[in-house]
Amino acid sequence: MTLQTTKTHIVHGGTLRYCRHDSAITGTPMTLSVFTPPGEGPFPVLIWLSGLTCTEDNFTSKAGAYRAAVEHGVIIVAPDTSPRGQGVADDDAYDLGQGAGFYVDATQAPWAPHFRMESYVTDELIALVDAGFPTTKTRSVFGHSMGGHGALTLALCHPELFQSVSAFAPIASPTRCAWGEKAFTAYLGDDRAEWVKHDAALLLESGAASGVYDDILVDQGDGDQFLTDQLKPELLKAAADKAGQKLTVRMQPGYDHSYFFMASFIDDHVAFHAARLKG
Amino acid sequence: MTLQTTKTHIVHGGTLRYCRHDSAITGTPMTLSVFTPPGEGPFPVLIWLSGLTCTEDNFTSKAGAYRAAVEHGVIIVAPDTSPRGQGVADDDAYDLGQGAGFYVDATQAPWAPHFRMESYVTDELIALVDAGFPTTKTRSVFGHSMGGHGALTLALCHPELFQSVSAFAPIASPTRCAWGEKAFTAYLGDDRAEWVKHDAALLLESGAASGVYDDILVDQGDGDQFLTDQLKPELLKAAADKAGQKLTVRMQPGYDHSYFFMASFIDDHVAFHAARLKG
Repeated sequence: MTLQTTKTHIVHGGTLRYCRHDSAITGTPMTLSVFTPPGEGPFPVLIWLSGLTCTEDNFTSKAGAYRAAVEHGVIIVAPDTSPRGQGVADDDAYDLGQGAGFYVDATQAPWAPHFRMESYVTDELIALVDAGFPTTKTRSVFGHSMGGHGALTLALCHPELFQSVSAFAPIASPTRCAWGEKAFTAYLGDDRAEWVKHDAALLLESGAASGVYDDILVDQGDGDQFLTDQLKPELLKAAADKAGQKLTVRMQPGYDHSYFFMASFIDDHVAFHAARLKG
Repeated sequence: MTLQTTKTHIVHGGTLRYCRHDSAITGTPMTLSVFTPPGEGPFPVLIWLSGLTCTEDNFTSKAGAYRAAVEHGVIIVAPDTSPRGQGVADDDAYDLGQGAGFYVDATQAPWAPHFRMESYVTDELIALVDAGFPTTKTRSVFGHSMGGHGALTLALCHPELFQSVSAFAPIASPTRCAWGEKAFTAYLGDDRAEWVKHDAALLLESGAASGVYDDILVDQGDGDQFLTDQLKPELLKAAADKAGQKLTVRMQPGYDHSYFFMASFIDDHVAFHAARLKG
């Protein structure tokens, strides 16, 4: 259960490692990237969760996050979005199966044995990173789209693990959009009571993690093609307001769903978390 | 001969366009990206030339250059590295044919009709960009590896077109490395006298563009796997010293040949050119 480094790059004076390990949780090899700033640490950890179709490489090569990581002295970890491989169930569609783990533990066939991304992130990934790198054993979580849903739901369900949470264009309420309904039906079954604890807006509304996070930062492009049908940040905002949870949604004019959007505001998110990880 | 925009993204408040056009020079469709900062301009132009295997997308999505482009108010243009398509000659190797135009005008079969990247950049691309965007009609050029060779040789052979030139890990002397010897033999034939005007070190040594550029900036990772056999910045430095041309080679400790290296120092290069484009 140890990390192997498959590739190393120097970036902005820090060290970026592409890693793999045999996961006890998913029962498959898993891949991730880990960026450590220069110096001996210990450093707090920022976990990035990516969106549909992504591997660990999309964020790593396109988000431009490491300059800010050096500035603030934080480690950034980006895992793959699902188990993968020949023995792992899959679907022809881009929004189910490999590349679409949705950060839940599947209970339904054929997904149940391997698709356990909630436990993978909250149990195994955190422990592996704390064991393998000079961390302060404190961490925050952020992500994009499906990974924004992942960041919000994991932070709301596991508030003891995280100091702060933010998201880019998150799937705010997967029980009320096509992406979420499809994935949750497949992974969790037809009983919608099981879905509720994986829906950020419903979790907020029910008071999950009440009083834990001083603010939650959400950036959303108003030119995002998925805004109206899939993402629905207004449900998140309404739920937060109802629960008395401060949540800042910044509608960014003209921005779309791409990494160009994330690269434009990634510095703000790293700074948001760094202030809370060191405060 | 006009540019069509195929995709638009907002990035750092500016506008990034992926474009295509039918090239009169290559006789094929050509693709490029054009980033314009916010505001009406006119803006000076920075042309990026990419390395082997790249399209216009590698730099565009991975270099993280657009924050600095907004800061300094410059347009950045990144063309594809060669003509492409079914009717265009190609080779199975990554270092010849499509994706490997080497910024020369081929004189040899089967490359001659389409592979004319020197004329493409210096004639057609510049004119297209000046016609289609609010430019000051002044520009500089930079690039990576094969594109670093392209930037240096085009700037040295066409000093009337450019205000400044810089490079990341350029092929400093293609007549004296395997990549260059292979490409020049294929594109230009066996007569090495034809090669000399496409070799940055030999051009510098012969006094090309003497007195035009106050400095030439080169960044080179000392962990670059191609440093010793293919890139040879020491030949460039020796030639510049001999010719009395100021040339700053910064050996960057631990950095490799990847876009992680370029992303780490891209701000310095944009600032280097901006100072000379506006000075």
